[in-house]
Amino acid sequence: MKIALDAMGGDTAPETAIAGAIRAARELPVEVVLVGQQAAIEQHLASYAKRPANLSIVHAAEVIGMDESPVASVRKKRDSSINVGVELLKERKVDAFVSAGNTGAVVSASTLLVGLLPGIERPGIATLLPGVTKDTLLIDVGANIDPKPLHLLQYALMGEAYMRCVLGRVRPTVGLLNVGEEETKGTEFMKETYGLIEASGVNFVGNVEGHDIFTGEFDVIVCDGFAGNVALKTAESLAHAISVLLKRSLAMSPITRLGAWLAHDAFLNLRKEIDYAEHGGAPLLGVDGISIIAHGASGGKAIKNAIRVAYESVRHELNPNMVEAIRLSSQRVPP
Amino acid sequence: MKIALDAMGGDTAPETAIAGAIRAARELPVEVVLVGQQAAIEQHLASYAKRPANLSIVHAAEVIGMDESPVASVRKKRDSSINVGVELLKERKVDAFVSAGNTGAVVSASTLLVGLLPGIERPGIATLLPGVTKDTLLIDVGANIDPKPLHLLQYALMGEAYMRCVLGRVRPTVGLLNVGEEETKGTEFMKETYGLIEASGVNFVGNVEGHDIFTGEFDVIVCDGFAGNVALKTAESLAHAISVLLKRSLAMSPITRLGAWLAHDAFLNLRKEIDYAEHGGAPLLGVDGISIIAHGASGGKAIKNAIRVAYESVRHELNPNMVEAIRLSSQRVPP
Repeated sequence: MKIALDAMGGDTAPETAIAGAIRAARELPVEVVLVGQQAAIEQHLASYAKRPANLSIVHAAEVIGMDESPVASVRKKRDSSINVGVELLKERKVDAFVSAGNTGAVVSASTLLVGLLPGIERPGIATLLPGVTKDTLLIDVGANIDPKPLHLLQYALMGEAYMRCVLGRVRPTVGLLNVGEEETKGTEFMKETYGLIEASGVNFVGNVEGHDIFTGEFDVIVCDGFAGNVALKTAESLAHAISVLLKRSLAMSPITRLGAWLAHDAFLNLRKEIDYAEHGGAPLLGVDGISIIAHGASGGKAIKNAIRVAYESVRHELNPNMVEAIRLSSQRVPP
Repeated sequence: MKIALDAMGGDTAPETAIAGAIRAARELPVEVVLVGQQAAIEQHLASYAKRPANLSIVHAAEVIGMDESPVASVRKKRDSSINVGVELLKERKVDAFVSAGNTGAVVSASTLLVGLLPGIERPGIATLLPGVTKDTLLIDVGANIDPKPLHLLQYALMGEAYMRCVLGRVRPTVGLLNVGEEETKGTEFMKETYGLIEASGVNFVGNVEGHDIFTGEFDVIVCDGFAGNVALKTAESLAHAISVLLKRSLAMSPITRLGAWLAHDAFLNLRKEIDYAEHGGAPLLGVDGISIIAHGASGGKAIKNAIRVAYESVRHELNPNMVEAIRLSSQRVPP
């Protein structure tokens, strides 16, 4: 299996991308194809004592910046690492593409160049969030900020297929993110979406709320990309704020500082449990090829885990399974 | 100053409502008017050694349940504690109304019975959230889940007036919650809203994202009630999840348990910093009278703080100040 990695994507590229690629090449039965500026990649690779044999380079001269306009940059920078990597995916020269670069550009390139799976109208970014009892998949967290109810139905079906096929969840539950639990809650848009998902054949539990996201009670929570993006970034912001405030509180006296020192392992363990790096990248579901979006601030471990998510998605034949789920459902609910 | 408290509202009413009323009556220069079933209130009051003189009761025979349909229950239960309390506000027999009951019912009763301030089209629920450096006001968190751009403009103006007049912030900054910082980000709805707020005269800093909510960098963040509700409940869910996971981690070994015991004061301090109970109730801005919504799970301290928010809002003449802000802005941007 070959997995292309955008070597130029992420806040600290190419350094951390390469660190992640090396870890993935050592730990996973895949060939990692680094896509980006060859000279820069070679230079960073030279700092490693031994370069794994299952690591190769495909040159791409341009780089799309983290803040560039997605659609325009993908159209203009044909030789960017994102475009070249996605082209490899399109030509089936690799089995998956992973990038910690400009999220919008990855979504645009994947959609425009590779295209969507049969029956899918819009791709959605699915993110696995840590919960008290188990992880929950939130879809969409920003690919599609003005969706139609049909798009949310398709997110429900694709998210369900992901949790079932890739994570091995048995009959995953699917909830619809709303402002109240009753079927009659929310906008007309939400009520229509509710009806579509209810009739789709997935294990639909109805409306859920923001306070259900981190309980682990549900396998999949479906939302529009605007609300999902707000929820995800709010959660990141709060986790950071709690971490800062906790450190400040722990420094308040010699006793609490001693306590913090003794409890060090517990804090490390907590960080591990809630760290996005442990959960890997976010699959862009619906694209006719496996495309994984990693966090821009990903370190080497997060990049490696994003490559692992790509590997698992290919190995468990995610896309054929999603197509089948959409096909079966469309026999129940004609689009 | 007289403040009516819905004695029957909240998950543990009337017990905690009464506990909060007693604390408020002792600590604040106000008369607290308990509204609800007189016999039940008297029974709970009897357990207190000394009943403050500045505490009175107005009987209301009915109770609106936490899960009842808001509009229908307000129409049907004319003698509910929410209706009776809001009627007192309407008739200017009290200066403010506070409830930890059914949020939708408080919004409906306040809007239908008391009406809105001149020039205001929709009320919005404003919640003060703890941040790393200072608190941020998020408006709207659920009163209006399908708003028009004009409503969001009015939330910006009302939120700014609240932070300026009640919290004493100098020239408060106002951000618009979106999925990216550039002016061109988001839906057409967001772009139109951006233009309106930019022209309004408030200290507009442009688009902000979910990750800006808990930094304390901004004074006011404006959003539609759907996204705001999701953000608020997601944050509550994550804070709870982190608390559970932290406790679990701290119990992992005798050393970490000892550390946790020594660091106890630090955890108490953190809890105090992020606890909603410290921040009091959420003002329903835009109503022609001060109406404060407390969290359903409020304890006595949270109820007392919600009454304090009501007291400060009346004392600082919030509503006349908001009307003036709307008037001045409408001279700049005709609605």
